[in-house]
Amino acid sequence: MDDLITSPANPRLKLIRRLRERKVREQHGLFYVEGIRLVAEAIQQDWPIEMLVVAPHRLSSAFAWQHVEQARRKGIRILEVSPQAFESLALKENPQGIAVVACQRWAPLSMVNPNAGELWVALEAIQDPGNLGTILRTAEAVGAKGVILLEHTTDPYDPVAVRASMGAVFTQQLVRTTQDEFLHWCAQTHPPLIGTSDKARQDYHEFSYPQGLILMMGSEREGLSPVYAALCQTMVAIPMVGRVDSLNVAVATAVVLYEIFNQRRRRENRTRMGVSEEQLS
Amino acid sequence: MDDLITSPANPRLKLIRRLRERKVREQHGLFYVEGIRLVAEAIQQDWPIEMLVVAPHRLSSAFAWQHVEQARRKGIRILEVSPQAFESLALKENPQGIAVVACQRWAPLSMVNPNAGELWVALEAIQDPGNLGTILRTAEAVGAKGVILLEHTTDPYDPVAVRASMGAVFTQQLVRTTQDEFLHWCAQTHPPLIGTSDKARQDYHEFSYPQGLILMMGSEREGLSPVYAALCQTMVAIPMVGRVDSLNVAVATAVVLYEIFNQRRRRENRTRMGVSEEQLS
Repeated sequence: MDDLITSPANPRLKLIRRLRERKVREQHGLFYVEGIRLVAEAIQQDWPIEMLVVAPHRLSSAFAWQHVEQARRKGIRILEVSPQAFESLALKENPQGIAVVACQRWAPLSMVNPNAGELWVALEAIQDPGNLGTILRTAEAVGAKGVILLEHTTDPYDPVAVRASMGAVFTQQLVRTTQDEFLHWCAQTHPPLIGTSDKARQDYHEFSYPQGLILMMGSEREGLSPVYAALCQTMVAIPMVGRVDSLNVAVATAVVLYEIFNQRRRRENRTRMGVSEEQLS
Repeated sequence: MDDLITSPANPRLKLIRRLRERKVREQHGLFYVEGIRLVAEAIQQDWPIEMLVVAPHRLSSAFAWQHVEQARRKGIRILEVSPQAFESLALKENPQGIAVVACQRWAPLSMVNPNAGELWVALEAIQDPGNLGTILRTAEAVGAKGVILLEHTTDPYDPVAVRASMGAVFTQQLVRTTQDEFLHWCAQTHPPLIGTSDKARQDYHEFSYPQGLILMMGSEREGLSPVYAALCQTMVAIPMVGRVDSLNVAVATAVVLYEIFNQRRRRENRTRMGVSEEQLS
């Protein structure tokens, strides 16, 4: 272990602070994760970690010390810093004194296989990292496999997205793709795509979703653009009354994902009870 | 109309800036609303407005000018300011140059009447104004009447909540109450209360919700506290798989609200088709 770093001007701490910028994160393929809950999740998931940063004088819980010990046994490099040096990194006030610099991990589009029953979410041009993190959290809760980020979508490794994901950033598969690559892949593999639009005639709640599918969600302002909408087998709408004409994108995604999840659960219950789909329809 | 105000140090602009603090908002019973979309909604809803603030040199759309004109005809006081003075107020970069200082409007608990079929949401100790605004927006979309804020819940008139509500802050009824007042009111009126908890045995999707009800949601970290949970006729749980053990509170509220809304829609369709509940069950 190195000596305790006390100066916020230390070059390694400078680099960690620069990870707040997307450009720097992408350049180094790294991101910064703060707080014992998220750090514990990263260690437990055997996530590739570049470095654990600890301010021993700030670390009060036995749970946190157990994870420092676990990281040490795994051979993860540990950087000990003074409380003041830690605060220079921290994104929140009163930080817990534990963080990791972790490696970004991207899955290739070729591993997406909705035809084998997998549930995925594809996001076009989502701007707000808090919304993206919340979508990852909900996707994890309904058993989705991962999230496909179509170009111009915000960074899932943004600290705000990481925090909002409540650890789902470590368990959901993340795929980044361009429009060209996605169109080409769709032409080859014919995945079941379901899109959402407030102008669609099909009520999201009255549609029978296939077992595997990609749910396509558009941006906060514009919705799904025509090129992606045209790819979808079905466009569904979430009905609304009252004076608002749209929902928050993380809310809209959750409402449709839970409908899909409820239908999947119903199917599984039937299978468990030995009733086939044909007998019921 | 007054002369154009150019100095950010003008006392009226100073007061408007201080409305960023909850304490000052409550003291004056006012809040600050920025952007043409929200300002238009406030004017169209005949919301009580203390003052319209306009930076004429920034105002480009005819839609915005129409609303300035409409406000003038309604006798609303108009404060014209320079672009620079407006920027000193603005919460966003590149502001649209139009804002209002509006009056807070609170409804009394006595107007809440779920026994007459109304849908309400009650929130305990929600901390994040973005979550609160998003909940208002979803509540409006499903035809809820309003939101009851149990003590220690964040301020719906916080600028972040106002923006996230997308105007629902002007249409949803807002009720503020203490635990004592709420308990007393419940003992007198026996409202149907449904709470949520990840430990509940009742699946939210398999429960038949009464026509009118108050959906009780707990805080981001703690959930619903025992005193409120004990009041609920039923506690429902949202099932989850995967590594996360909770949902974002605005997402959880939306998932249950849409289940309630879907059941209401189904009932209305049956009534329209002349089929009674009894015939179906």
